[in-house]
Amino acid sequence: MPDGARSLNDLQTPALVVDVAALDHNLLAMSAALPGARLRPHVKAHKCTALARRQAALGHRGFTCATIREVEGLAAAGLSDDLLLANEVLDARRLGALPARVTVAVDSEETIAAAAVGGVREVLIDVNVGLPRCGCAPADAGRLADLARQRGLTVRGVMGYEGHAMLVEDAGKRSQLISDSMALLRAAHAEVGGDVVSAGGTGSFDRNPVATEIQAGSYALMDTAYAKLGLPFRCALGVLARVVSVSPSFAVADCGLKALGMDHGNPAIDGAKVWFCSDEHITFAPEIPVRVGERIRVWPAHVDPTVAYHERLHLVEGDRVLESWPVDLRGW
Amino acid sequence: MPDGARSLNDLQTPALVVDVAALDHNLLAMSAALPGARLRPHVKAHKCTALARRQAALGHRGFTCATIREVEGLAAAGLSDDLLLANEVLDARRLGALPARVTVAVDSEETIAAAAVGGVREVLIDVNVGLPRCGCAPADAGRLADLARQRGLTVRGVMGYEGHAMLVEDAGKRSQLISDSMALLRAAHAEVGGDVVSAGGTGSFDRNPVATEIQAGSYALMDTAYAKLGLPFRCALGVLARVVSVSPSFAVADCGLKALGMDHGNPAIDGAKVWFCSDEHITFAPEIPVRVGERIRVWPAHVDPTVAYHERLHLVEGDRVLESWPVDLRGW
Repeated sequence: MPDGARSLNDLQTPALVVDVAALDHNLLAMSAALPGARLRPHVKAHKCTALARRQAALGHRGFTCATIREVEGLAAAGLSDDLLLANEVLDARRLGALPARVTVAVDSEETIAAAAVGGVREVLIDVNVGLPRCGCAPADAGRLADLARQRGLTVRGVMGYEGHAMLVEDAGKRSQLISDSMALLRAAHAEVGGDVVSAGGTGSFDRNPVATEIQAGSYALMDTAYAKLGLPFRCALGVLARVVSVSPSFAVADCGLKALGMDHGNPAIDGAKVWFCSDEHITFAPEIPVRVGERIRVWPAHVDPTVAYHERLHLVEGDRVLESWPVDLRGW
Repeated sequence: MPDGARSLNDLQTPALVVDVAALDHNLLAMSAALPGARLRPHVKAHKCTALARRQAALGHRGFTCATIREVEGLAAAGLSDDLLLANEVLDARRLGALPARVTVAVDSEETIAAAAVGGVREVLIDVNVGLPRCGCAPADAGRLADLARQRGLTVRGVMGYEGHAMLVEDAGKRSQLISDSMALLRAAHAEVGGDVVSAGGTGSFDRNPVATEIQAGSYALMDTAYAKLGLPFRCALGVLARVVSVSPSFAVADCGLKALGMDHGNPAIDGAKVWFCSDEHITFAPEIPVRVGERIRVWPAHVDPTVAYHERLHLVEGDRVLESWPVDLRGW
């Protein structure tokens, strides 16, 4: 939807806006660090096939997904070369029906059976490398790989997400946690076989030499939590809001809990102290007075659950809206 | 979408499920306490016109909204008798164009001008009664009412939301805060005039005799935060999730940050301790072991931002899905 004639003032607030210069910088910086198949961009962070197309145009033809809907959406958009559902599912029939190369993570007899019954042909053995979430015990990976092969599945390798390391601000400690996790994944890989060791994220993109591919997603849009790590990526995503009420000691804008992922805490506003958010409001104390009607930028603390609330993502350059992209990979 | 043949097992998880007996109990209990126009149900808590129709069928013909989209959706559904946008807007043209009786909250010269320019005919003067959010200073209410009348608007009365009292667990303290707030609102009303004193919510429905109408919304579906108050409403809303991975000390289900409002903290699972949520997962320690594939109910801490993530809300009775309702009032 190219629409060069629109300005920020035409957008109904709250609106997700992406600074095109910051986005381009982020995409290029990551492609330089992890070219081609070394990066398997995770679409859960943006849920937007238009943005995924930009990543593919830079040479990243394989994608990481967290939901069946994300896999379906990428396949429907023709981004179907190599789609990894880096998550466990108990009913894989929608995946098996897609005209795309689909690989699914498995970590149990049940999820292996689901992949086989659902018509998925390729799997990665998901290994718990320290984050208490999905993934088998490292010592169980070889047995599960054998089981998957007995069920006729191709085992492409292993996956293990060192998510507990991702937001550790001390870079040395972060590297150590990643290294410990990857030692577990390497050992599991020796038992499993296959070409793929899939791991990592934005917080480990430059310090995980064990993974053959990195599943980073947040780097494209960024958020205030990742910004604390001093990574070479810029905060590209803000929520455009409008000041709707002003009092002597605070002001209120129309960007609230239904426009922001809140699990990492309050968002930020430049030159202001954020007090709290309500369903459709943010109350903040600005250093310099604001006026009713003024537009401000709210910086989310966590990009993924923020984007998932919005129907569209507007690409902007200064006050100009260049394009509006549907956030078309939402839901399940 | 009546679909009596479906069972919970047919739902793609995560899925919003509403227990019909609890919902009916809540709707009837509130209607008994606040019949007809004494209740102006707030649709922001459920964002669902099908549920609003049930509220209307019980005699509540006026509704409270937090967004323009909510007003538009109710008008399109024919629930157009008396719609209050209990929020400030700077562009009221979409509201003025609706074939519905629309009243909008105003708290400044700018929002009064927006209502007049946008073609809205009726307003409430929004008064700050203690929650630092929208609302004019009580002493300014009379002046703003005069200004609105000079602009040709009908001033129906006042509005003041005692939101800072709503979740105070000590009932005596809660009553005192409400009483203090309503003293401010009553004084402002004396200066403003009009028939309407609109205030309140689920936490004050039975202890706010000043308001002529109560704007409660959460009572219909409820959440774990409101459940702590000991109100006569039951938790009707859960997120159905499926266990996708089991380890010796914890289990993981497919209900994460994109299926839950997180500003009130972690959700709850009966018979389990919730550890943390990720984008698409909840990690928890069950008292009794669970198995991969098992379906569980996750109880959200905050209903409003939870519902806003979902496309549908499934009305269930035991394991049967009675109806599936679109959450059709999302967005802005």
